[in-house]
Amino acid sequence: MIVCKFGGTSVASAEQIKKVASIVKSNPERKIVAVSAPGKRSSDDIKVTDLLIDLANTVINKGDVEAKIKAVVNRYRNIAEDLGLDNTISDIIEQDIRGRVTENWSDKDLFLDNMKASGEDNNAKLIACYFNAIGMPAKYISPKDKLILNDFPERTYALPEAYENLSVLKNTEEIIIFPGFFGYTKSGVLRTFDRGGSDITGSILASAVGAELYENFTDVDCVFAANPKVVNDPVDIKEITYREMRELSYAGFSVFHDEALMPVYKQGIPVNIKNTNNPSASGTLILPTRPATNRPVTGISADSGFSILYVSKYLMNREVGFGRKLLQIIEEENISYEHTPSGLDDISVIMRSSQLSPEIEARIVKRVKEELCADDVQFSHNFSMIVIVGEGMRHNTGLAARAATAISATGANIEMINQGSSEVSLVFGVRSEYEDQILKGLYEEFFATITSF
Amino acid sequence: MIVCKFGGTSVASAEQIKKVASIVKSNPERKIVAVSAPGKRSSDDIKVTDLLIDLANTVINKGDVEAKIKAVVNRYRNIAEDLGLDNTISDIIEQDIRGRVTENWSDKDLFLDNMKASGEDNNAKLIACYFNAIGMPAKYISPKDKLILNDFPERTYALPEAYENLSVLKNTEEIIIFPGFFGYTKSGVLRTFDRGGSDITGSILASAVGAELYENFTDVDCVFAANPKVVNDPVDIKEITYREMRELSYAGFSVFHDEALMPVYKQGIPVNIKNTNNPSASGTLILPTRPATNRPVTGISADSGFSILYVSKYLMNREVGFGRKLLQIIEEENISYEHTPSGLDDISVIMRSSQLSPEIEARIVKRVKEELCADDVQFSHNFSMIVIVGEGMRHNTGLAARAATAISATGANIEMINQGSSEVSLVFGVRSEYEDQILKGLYEEFFATITSF
Repeated sequence: MIVCKFGGTSVASAEQIKKVASIVKSNPERKIVAVSAPGKRSSDDIKVTDLLIDLANTVINKGDVEAKIKAVVNRYRNIAEDLGLDNTISDIIEQDIRGRVTENWSDKDLFLDNMKASGEDNNAKLIACYFNAIGMPAKYISPKDKLILNDFPERTYALPEAYENLSVLKNTEEIIIFPGFFGYTKSGVLRTFDRGGSDITGSILASAVGAELYENFTDVDCVFAANPKVVNDPVDIKEITYREMRELSYAGFSVFHDEALMPVYKQGIPVNIKNTNNPSASGTLILPTRPATNRPVTGISADSGFSILYVSKYLMNREVGFGRKLLQIIEEENISYEHTPSGLDDISVIMRSSQLSPEIEARIVKRVKEELCADDVQFSHNFSMIVIVGEGMRHNTGLAARAATAISATGANIEMINQGSSEVSLVFGVRSEYEDQILKGLYEEFFATITSF
Repeated sequence: MIVCKFGGTSVASAEQIKKVASIVKSNPERKIVAVSAPGKRSSDDIKVTDLLIDLANTVINKGDVEAKIKAVVNRYRNIAEDLGLDNTISDIIEQDIRGRVTENWSDKDLFLDNMKASGEDNNAKLIACYFNAIGMPAKYISPKDKLILNDFPERTYALPEAYENLSVLKNTEEIIIFPGFFGYTKSGVLRTFDRGGSDITGSILASAVGAELYENFTDVDCVFAANPKVVNDPVDIKEITYREMRELSYAGFSVFHDEALMPVYKQGIPVNIKNTNNPSASGTLILPTRPATNRPVTGISADSGFSILYVSKYLMNREVGFGRKLLQIIEEENISYEHTPSGLDDISVIMRSSQLSPEIEARIVKRVKEELCADDVQFSHNFSMIVIVGEGMRHNTGLAARAATAISATGANIEMINQGSSEVSLVFGVRSEYEDQILKGLYEEFFATITSF
């Protein structure tokens, strides 16, 4: 059995949904389909999810709700008409939306979640309706009472019972159309996934039914070895391990959110990232392990927005517990950190700048100076992390040298190097202004001559 | 005022003590002299300190004490005779030793400390006696009631009152001969310094009297840029900062123990490492800051005996506090660590192997697996740390690349790189079997063409 997930652009229009139908039809193993809300039909288009957020805010601010409702409903009506469906499904969708609008919005977050989720929910109903209309027996399944989530305030995730409940779907006769992006708490409250959205729903479904493959359909042929916006025509990645994918998506690889890998990772289910607009392309396969290639590096990613906290104290390394106490202070500010390179008398803590503010920084500096009696404590900003990823590259003699040399060739100074733990990645910290140059330079060094692998 | 310290080989024989006298005489600023116990006169000789340890153990094990006492006393008698002194001082020393032997040894550590310390104490008396005999007014000063130490069990260090008590010595008329290596607690218990020995005593004296210079006389002309036992004829270091010296002594540079730098560091007193056997050589100056040279690297050191604890857990970086909890477990085993390179889902903790045992390792692995639910936890051993040191080298573009390339050229794999905190050092972790080759390779890369600086 194969679980497929189709992203926003894959279900943005009748034309796209027809592609989805033919893809699902072409392989009888494709029995479970997770869908997103209709996305952009063109670059200047507005996603239904954004129309819904606009609608929700209009309700809260008591604006012209009617016009906003129409904007949303008409998107579905257009799709339904273009698919040759009668008004039945569109009327159902309109009722559903009008119903949600009238719901209590004392808790704005819950109200917003409920409105947003309607995008996937109604699209799933519409697609199920279309499949049946063209003779593909299909059935819309609501996450209600099935995809059970933890209670907030923590980040939303599926509880073990969700997997039990959903496992029955493996015996389905019809093709199941399941809305992505949301679930319900035990008490029946609708919650959306903070990150990874519909990808997570598909991953949970694949894991619950023990699928042999999870196909993630998007609008790119594959994952590239480097950001195509920076590197000119980068090679595509045919096979990549979970670990490699994790490390890459950490620093800017947005193709597939790493959190969505968790459910399938646990069961070792392969993930195939494919293109709805070019289904014959083999795409990128994410696997527990992969055959070694002759190239040590699988991909290079870069991400900006990092800050460094530098702390120095003479004879620091004689103080058992100094590092631990420092991390405790940072933890008490609810800040998660990325790396902690350390010298003999100094340690740096590298974290995402988005978690900081002048007040938080001042508090941390004050505490570290007072509680740890540090000599020098300071924050510096505008750093980027460049991550070079490849299974087993740690055992590739000279790789760090090649990378460092390529970076130096750009004239950039290496502010931080972190190697020694992960066997699949090597991280360089640099000033953000050099990020693109360095990504180009490293790509040249490790991929230049090869076209594909 | 200059405070001098003379090491074991500088005061091992009459001939050496005569050199000390002429050195002190040659500059009237040299008013305070800290001395060690008589060291080896030749490579196959036995240090008085070792004779004393042997004596102490013989007492405890009720062996032939008389022979051991004679062995110690005769060393002093020979020196005294060769210096042309009568028996008075030798008899005093013999009485002192016979007195210590009869003291209560219920606490073996204290007994051993007391016996060992007699080596410096009696040598100071003898040298003061000789100085006076040759017309250099000198005075032996006991650390008793002056060099006040903290109470164990912690590592011994001088309390603030020690500096107050000793500050009066700056008004001395005579040359003060002060025994190194030990002091007394407030309750009058004799304790020796765990590390750095007489170097610390000299440093404390220099700090207490606010000396303009602390001269540390040993048996080498200077500190070398790399270990002469490994690198053929390394260049000498004329000037080095405290920070650089610290980083170098951390990994195997045994010339001057870094802990001995602390007292002078606080006051910014320069330290001059000189050779008793070649006092005209300018030696190595340790300074708070030094003029920039055209070379980014000041020295390279290497030390073996490191172990790495590797811990991996999927989505580790989403767990606020994981690293801190890990360090807590290690701290609870009273283990201090050196570096913690981290990947996205894994972290390594690098520590000195001497702190570990199969039992400790098993305990740590068990706790990390159970308490942190880690996927993979393992220790690996036989690593060396190679430390490249130089003020401001961090801002020397390409240095890391040059170093990594030189290491790779030896065929060694770089297991860890730690750069990003210390501005004066860059640390590479490698398998110990490559240590010497790499040290040679790095020396070639950074010093080859230059002869001295």
